[in-house]
Formats: sequence, structure tokens, C-alpha cells
Amino acid sequence: MPKIVDHAARREEIAEALWRVVRRDGIRAASVRTIAAEAGWSAGAVRYYFPDQEGLLSFAMDLVSRRVSDRVGAIEPKGSATTIALRYLEEALPLDAERRAEFDVWLAFMAQARAETGAGTLQEHVDTVHNGLRRLCESLLHSLAEAGALRDGLDLRRETEHLHALIDGLALHAAIQPDRSTAPRIRQLLRHHLETLTAGNP
Amino acid sequence: MPKIVDHAARREEIAEALWRVVRRDGIRAASVRTIAAEAGWSAGAVRYYFPDQEGLLSFAMDLVSRRVSDRVGAIEPKGSATTIALRYLEEALPLDAERRAEFDVWLAFMAQARAETGAGTLQEHVDTVHNGLRRLCESLLHSLAEAGALRDGLDLRRETEHLHALIDGLALHAAIQPDRSTAPRIRQLLRHHLETLTAGNP
Repeated sequence: MPKIVDHAARREEIAEALWRVVRRDGIRAASVRTIAAEAGWSAGAVRYYFPDQEGLLSFAMDLVSRRVSDRVGAIEPKGSATTIALRYLEEALPLDAERRAEFDVWLAFMAQARAETGAGTLQEHVDTVHNGLRRLCESLLHSLAEAGALRDGLDLRRETEHLHALIDGLALHAAIQPDRSTAPRIRQLLRHHLETLTAGNP
Repeated sequence: MPKIVDHAARREEIAEALWRVVRRDGIRAASVRTIAAEAGWSAGAVRYYFPDQEGLLSFAMDLVSRRVSDRVGAIEPKGSATTIALRYLEEALPLDAERRAEFDVWLAFMAQARAETGAGTLQEHVDTVHNGLRRLCESLLHSLAEAGALRDGLDLRRETEHLHALIDGLALHAAIQPDRSTAPRIRQLLRHHLETLTAGNP
């Protein structure tokens, strides 16, 4: 009788091993071989789940998306509309070691997608994450508008693009120079930006 | 008598071959072998100038810095203070195929620097480019202030960080989704941002 394998549990185990390798040694260190060693499996068993480097990177990226979604889903909407919006936006920013590891995976993924010639599946994945963050910015601004917190005359489509670009730029800066672009400075800058949109409304 | 080699001219030739490969096939296609083939040289001769993949990437990055500096240096400061500032900022944005190739080199470089463990020379290079763009943002805002174009009460240090992050975020978006983040939309968004700082002053 063949051994019954719980594939979901195995994927979860690989995900955890992958994540330990990425946090400890960086995304470039993540290969089928290193992850198998980390999980205590054979390379062949790991390769069953992701046959090549691209599959592995896609798997890592899925994991990042899931982690961010889980955190965003767990946020309790307490406090002023601006405070709530800030709490959501922070989940997309690499403000601690855990989220910096996520950002590094995203960056490696992005660079690989850009470097691919032709229409790759990686680019689709980049689009999904990119569009997800834009929709989050959009929905937060609409929530602020519905709460009557935004000042008059704002073009919400333009403000969505601005906020989205600002978040991605700040994420990049927090990753490039964490000593300069610290978590408190980034929070302060983001709060100030939202305040220019709400102009003193709560 | 040994053959006299003009090293500067040879580096220039390699730079041109490298750039043709990057534009045509992407940064990942750039290797000592492909560049040698493009330049019509032996791999050994190319390797004399950059011994490994990291040297090659640094060389490509130097080339990008030089290209941006040359363009920025060639700008004639005509028009209103805001128009001039916009002209400078645009040079850092991947708004055409040429600058998108530059951005891809930068992104690959960044991702590799982030993925390196320990203090790498790549990170120093990333810092140089990063600090260069921040100083450009800073000096443009100070020029606007000296011209009396900025509205009162702005915190120039914060506005520098905001502008810098916005530029990097917009650059990322123009590279990820060029069909959505088009050159006209990005120019418009950037002009609007500067207008919120000048509040109607020219």
C-alpha cells in the first residue's frame, strides 16, 4: 500500500524551511538543495513540489503574499480613519526583519521577472501583487472619503497613484538604507502625507 | 615591442557592446561570453576588464550613472523653477526604452546587492546612486525655496524624503506596468506634486 502523503502539510513544511533559509542567508541562498537540507528531506522530494529555480521563487512569492494577506486580515479597525489606514499601509512596508525578508523576496522576484525575455509567468505574479497594493491604497482612500475625512477637491484616482508610488518608494528606501529610513521616520512621513489629504479632519 | 592598447577606448567599446546586449536581450543575458561575441573580441580580452559577473554588473552600473550624469549636466535651466525641477527629475525616471534599460540594470544590481551576505562593494555602489538622487531632490527643493516658489511652513528635510520616495516609487511603477504608468501620467502626477508645494507660485 502506498504511503499516504499529506501534500498540504508537506508544502507547509517546505514553506517554513524556505523561509528560515531566506531570513538567515538571503534569497540567493535558497535553492532546492539548501531547502532540502534545511527541511531534512531529499532534494528529489523537494523538487517534486518545485521543479526549478523559477518554481521555487514563485513558491516563495506565494508565501509572501499569503503572509501579508494574513496580517492585513487580522487588523482590527480601531481608532481614527487615518490611524486605521496607516495600520494597513504599514503591512506593506519592510519595517522589521521579518518584513525585510519578504521585501527581499519580492525584489529578487521583480528583478528576475524584468530580466526574463518574453511574457513570463513571473510578470503575471508581479502584476497581481502590484495591483493588490494599488487596490488597497484605493480602498483606504475611498474609506477616508466615505468617513468624510478627506478634504474637498481631491482627485482620488491621482491620489491613489501617488499613495501607491509613495509606499513602494518608501519600501525601497527602508530596504536600501534601514539606518536612515527607519520605521519611526517612515511612519511619520506617511502620517504627514495622509494629514495633507485630510487637512486636520480626524 | 608590445602592442600599445588604448584602455579607455577599449572600455568604451565594451561599454557599448554591453549596452547593446542589455537593450536587446535584458541584463540577465549580459555575460562575459555574450559581450565578447557582441564586441567581436575573445572572452579572455573582455575578462581582463571585468573578471567576473559582479565586476560586469558594477561596470554596467557605472555606465548607467555616467549616462544619467551626462544627461543631467546637459539640461539647460530654462522656464519656471517648477518646469526646470521637473526636467531634472525626469532624467531619473524610466520614461523611454533607453531609460527603462538603465532602470533594469539598476534593479538587477539592487537585487544582487540585497542578496549578498555581508558588506559587499555592490551595496556601496547602491548607496552612491541612492544618495545622489536624494541630493538632487534636496537641491531642487532648495532652489525652489531660494526662488521664493515654495509655500511657507514646509519642512524641507521631510519634503526631500517624500519627493525622493515618490520618484523611486514612480520609477518602479513605470518599469512594472509601462502601459498604465505612462510617461504623460507620471509627468502629470509629478507636476501636481510640485504644485502642491509651490501652491500656485510659478
